[in-house]
Amino acid sequence: MSNEIGDEELENFYQKVKRDIEESGYHLNPDVEFTKYLLKNILLNEQRYGYGACPCRLAADNKEEDLDIICPCDYRDPDLNEYNTCYCGLYVSGDILEGKKKLQSIPERRPSPKEREQSKSEERSIISSLDIPVFRCSVCGYLCARQEPPEVCPICKVSKERFKRFI
Amino acid sequence: MSNEIGDEELENFYQKVKRDIEESGYHLNPDVEFTKYLLKNILLNEQRYGYGACPCRLAADNKEEDLDIICPCDYRDPDLNEYNTCYCGLYVSGDILEGKKKLQSIPERRPSPKEREQSKSEERSIISSLDIPVFRCSVCGYLCARQEPPEVCPICKVSKERFKRFI
Amino acid sequence: MSNEIGDEELENFYQKVKRDIEESGYHLNPDVEFTKYLLKNILLNEQRYGYGACPCRLAADNKEEDLDIICPCDYRDPDLNEYNTCYCGLYVSGDILEGKKKLQSIPERRPSPKEREQSKSEERSIISSLDIPVFRCSVCGYLCARQEPPEVCPICKVSKERFKRFI
Repeated sequence: MSNEIGDEELENFYQKVKRDIEESGYHLNPDVEFTKYLLKNILLNEQRYGYGACPCRLAADNKEEDLDIICPCDYRDPDLNEYNTCYCGLYVSGDILEGKKKLQSIPERRPSPKEREQSKSEERSIISSLDIPVFRCSVCGYLCARQEPPEVCPICKVSKERFKRFI
Repeated sequence: MSNEIGDEELENFYQKVKRDIEESGYHLNPDVEFTKYLLKNILLNEQRYGYGACPCRLAADNKEEDLDIICPCDYRDPDLNEYNTCYCGLYVSGDILEGKKKLQSIPERRPSPKEREQSKSEERSIISSLDIPVFRCSVCGYLCARQEPPEVCPICKVSKERFKRFI
Repeated sequence: MSNEIGDEELENFYQKVKRDIEESGYHLNPDVEFTKYLLKNILLNEQRYGYGACPCRLAADNKEEDLDIICPCDYRDPDLNEYNTCYCGLYVSGDILEGKKKLQSIPERRPSPKEREQSKSEERSIISSLDIPVFRCSVCGYLCARQEPPEVCPICKVSKERFKRFI
């Protein structure tokens, strides 16, 4: 297996990711060259490690430990809500796309290895998931458990402000 | 900014709305001319008010107050369940589309300004959302909180009768 | 009404089913001839009974009684999780598609008529749904109530291992 990604493979991956995420109301960075550079590194990580680890973070070469940073990472959506971009700049908010906000560099949200270790053992003892609020789309009733509602409802495409806290 | 909607803009909007909603199992009124007339008025409302208020209701020119009638409105799905159409006739049920039911005029479900004011203050004091039942798709496990299940499951496309009350 | 399915009708049905299920992260059996044979029998069942009963099971010619085996049946997803295929072999897992697993014949998961009768009366008296766990996608917060998470998240397309038990 050679560590090379062909142009066609990259183009197909780009098209598939773009289609998949737009269906759910997400957006890729409109800078196609930069976006493809990131996607290429995800494909390379898939060859190296067997999983598509985040192209901007150091992977542990251990899938179990890196589950949270397989792209899209567990931090994408909180970062989109707070900073209008994911850590890498691969995913951006609609406000960035429409030029209402500007891309900025953002801090790392992933907990340190020590904190991750700790929260793992906590998860075993208590049901920490109950801390995550559940939001409901007022139009279609879609339910999701997140710190904030998504930018648009993945089912009926209405915007964030139509969600209400449900639980 | 002129209050004009170009033919191409309208056509693009029509195609986008149609694609988005069909993916989730909804249907536009098959009378394309009438449907485009309604969509044009939504685009005009977007120009006037900054949000796409319902084309058949009087907007307050205040987004916060009109969140429930930004199209698709909060009343679309209950109206589709009960009357096979939304208030405007923009969205219709599968039964209408297949000629099993006929379009009829329907009463206004939106509460009066006074009632809306009252329910807003109630929301602040109690968690009224617990009155909304949660339904589960028996096939894929999709959960949604609505008065009745959707016409088809937006995830696996099975029909309404495959949903069961979950909570 | 003649019990015949035209080639074009079958092709359209095949394309529609394929598109719908791939959007949600499911896969049809890659043996197109076999798959179309099954789909043809679903269409024939629709003509005979008025609903698309499973092509590999004996239908009761009573929609109410057969709701659980209208394709996709209530047993598809548990069977995909446990055996990498549904009862008929119409739906297969990604592992089958990629050649990592082989198709095998699988046991019938549908309860016997007597058991179904019993569980129906139980449903009326207790809320049995609370036995079904709710899973949450760590990336997008999608919630679903199933025995196991889906192969991929229908909203953000991450794989099964990114789901965590939520309730």
